Amino acid sequence: MNRVYISDLSQHVGQTVELRGWVYNTRSSGKIKFLLLRDGTGVCQCVYFKGDCNPESFEAFEKLTQESCVYVTGTVKEEKRSPGGYELSAKNLTIHSIAAEYPISPKEHGTDFLMNHRHLWLRSSRQHAALRVRHEIIKSIRDFFDGRGFTLVDAPIFTPSACEGTSTLFQTNYFDEKAYLSQSGQLYNEAGAAAFGKVYCFGPTFRAEKSKTRRHLIEFWMVEPEVAFADLYENMELAEQFVEYIVQRVLKNRAEELRVLERNTAALEKIQAPFPRLHYNEAAELILKENPEFKKGDDFGGTDETIVSSKFDRPVFVHHYPAAVKAFYMKRDPSDEVSSLSCDLLATEGYGEIIGGGQREDDLEKLFSRIHEHGLREQDFSWYLDLRKYGTFPHSGFGLGVERTVAWICGLPHVRETAPFPRLYGRMYP
Amino acid sequence: MNRVYISDLSQHVGQTVELRGWVYNTRSSGKIKFLLLRDGTGVCQCVYFKGDCNPESFEAFEKLTQESCVYVTGTVKEEKRSPGGYELSAKNLTIHSIAAEYPISPKEHGTDFLMNHRHLWLRSSRQHAALRVRHEIIKSIRDFFDGRGFTLVDAPIFTPSACEGTSTLFQTNYFDEKAYLSQSGQLYNEAGAAAFGKVYCFGPTFRAEKSKTRRHLIEFWMVEPEVAFADLYENMELAEQFVEYIVQRVLKNRAEELRVLERNTAALEKIQAPFPRLHYNEAAELILKENPEFKKGDDFGGTDETIVSSKFDRPVFVHHYPAAVKAFYMKRDPSDEVSSLSCDLLATEGYGEIIGGGQREDDLEKLFSRIHEHGLREQDFSWYLDLRKYGTFPHSGFGLGVERTVAWICGLPHVRETAPFPRLYGRMYP
Repeated sequence: MNRVYISDLSQHVGQTVELRGWVYNTRSSGKIKFLLLRDGTGVCQCVYFKGDCNPESFEAFEKLTQESCVYVTGTVKEEKRSPGGYELSAKNLTIHSIAAEYPISPKEHGTDFLMNHRHLWLRSSRQHAALRVRHEIIKSIRDFFDGRGFTLVDAPIFTPSACEGTSTLFQTNYFDEKAYLSQSGQLYNEAGAAAFGKVYCFGPTFRAEKSKTRRHLIEFWMVEPEVAFADLYENMELAEQFVEYIVQRVLKNRAEELRVLERNTAALEKIQAPFPRLHYNEAAELILKENPEFKKGDDFGGTDETIVSSKFDRPVFVHHYPAAVKAFYMKRDPSDEVSSLSCDLLATEGYGEIIGGGQREDDLEKLFSRIHEHGLREQDFSWYLDLRKYGTFPHSGFGLGVERTVAWICGLPHVRETAPFPRLYGRMYP
Repeated sequence: MNRVYISDLSQHVGQTVELRGWVYNTRSSGKIKFLLLRDGTGVCQCVYFKGDCNPESFEAFEKLTQESCVYVTGTVKEEKRSPGGYELSAKNLTIHSIAAEYPISPKEHGTDFLMNHRHLWLRSSRQHAALRVRHEIIKSIRDFFDGRGFTLVDAPIFTPSACEGTSTLFQTNYFDEKAYLSQSGQLYNEAGAAAFGKVYCFGPTFRAEKSKTRRHLIEFWMVEPEVAFADLYENMELAEQFVEYIVQRVLKNRAEELRVLERNTAALEKIQAPFPRLHYNEAAELILKENPEFKKGDDFGGTDETIVSSKFDRPVFVHHYPAAVKAFYMKRDPSDEVSSLSCDLLATEGYGEIIGGGQREDDLEKLFSRIHEHGLREQDFSWYLDLRKYGTFPHSGFGLGVERTVAWICGLPHVRETAPFPRLYGRMYP
């Protein structure tokens, strides 16, 4: 028997095949019984006509419960009215297992209930769609950099020191030492750029933030490119081409998933480079008009980001943030030392910052001073300072958070549905 | 000025271009000076003829030290005798930075010294070659599964419970709870397979092993596919096609890197599926002939694996290991309950196990007993047991360790050179 996947049915019209999967739904009316079968690649209607199918199978049908595991054989027919466009004139039904009463029903469940059943909730069509978009985004991220001659240089997770500040660090015992879980591959990437010219790292990162917002995960994937000899402006060009590439590829390859998610795709079609660019001072003016509590010089909060991004139908760069609100390694503007050569990219529709980056300080003495000013321990950065001793070079890079990007492209209200098993403040199960 | 990368020089013959990079080597003889420039994508000889180039540049040349950062302009010439096949008739030299005396010289350095300078050591040609092969392997892993309809379902790093035994776990405080760093995405993958049919996860995993061997890293990347409705034998078929695909793609796309690494490629060309398969009992007989200390029923040590793999010029599967030496979730052979439906793949040339996997226990009651027999806490696995309550299904999968695979394909004597910043027992720096 030719066992096939539902997603491949179009290649088997007229053939007798076997499908293996789980009961999505059943319906009976006398001489005809309908089984909606899901196999992870799609859903197929299997039709059992009394007399046309094996009598034991017709009988056994009544035992089926939602999510029971079955093997079905039958003939593939084109049928426009069926989900997926094909159905099976079923002959046989083999029950592999009968499922206990399935906890997730079409009725409305609370978020907490669904999150506690995340291992089962993954089987639903909306979660399917979101995670398939996630897959497409991750693949397009790698293809973008691989196609432009970047070398993948994975950064370590265990690090002996903090990069982005110590208050949100996870710590573990690394034999006789203390290790911190990576918040960013940034510093390691700079060593990679000196070796390979254009590099990226892409892996999980960790922030122990005690905040329950719709934008924060404790554990999230981040891709970080770093380019030797690129300045702030080349960095923004790379970032806008990159974001355009991802969005347009999802639109092209995941149209069905965006339909399931009821995403407004017209808004996504507008995501084309170049993106607007605002100096921090210009953005601050915009914010001050709507948020009187904002003080010029401050970093932006979520509300402030939304004020700025609401003015545009494409993502918007804000550059030249005050050096005081950025990390120690950010290069300052030589013509305006209070400003940094930094840039964040704010997504449309209030999804906030999806990219943060900029040009790195490449002067050994200045970097040395910054490390002291930030109260960091010099010995933790001695290898990093070596990059300035041995052939220091101008370079820039950025980081893009995968889960926020998934939420934005899918139009999801909360990042918790953007990862298969999200880790949030107060949630590490299942 | 047209700024180009050395790897693209073939497209710019006869043009005046700018190269940016670092001094690899210099040589002077009167009226002619040679600069070997590296830019991360390759090495190019830049030739300064007195009279043909800018006089200040000819003068400045003498200041250059190894790894100084320079911008060079000149005309691209085909030159078979040059590294890379092209050279630059240089006109100008702009020095961006003069490097301090570079600590890594062509003389023999000890391993510890090189590992302490890993951030600089990455610039050398052998490390370049190994990490480019790593990149190709990682890309081919994703392409293999993406091309076969697998869905990427990333497993979490923070887990509330142990999967592969508690002795080698890293632990951290997750707010008010304890979290363990993932040793395997296996259990989560099974939920993914029930949702998507064919899935894989691919990310870093962690084992706190206090052992200094050439095969072990503390932090390593692992790819784990899981397939609904696949049995042990289909699992081995998938694994052998997968390994063949990776090896053949590296041979095809990374020939130059394998040459730098002096890899015996004839041995790699033989890595073609199908691979030989030995029942554990057959493998045990082979081992007993050469290692009298081995006891039938034991797991294999490194020496035992080498005895078995030395009999073959392709990787060899050993299947049906005693259930007692395998994890609780491994299904037992229904016709021989002391054996498990497990399979490991041993690489050629003594590189040891690169794949471990098998068919999973899909019977709720049996799994329940195993959890108790292994002294595990039932509540930690309640979600995992749900997968057997709601539509349990036969399924199999495996895990492949990236760094060991890189060591094997590159022919490296030790896994420490297979990751950009390897984490070993006693080493977390840089």
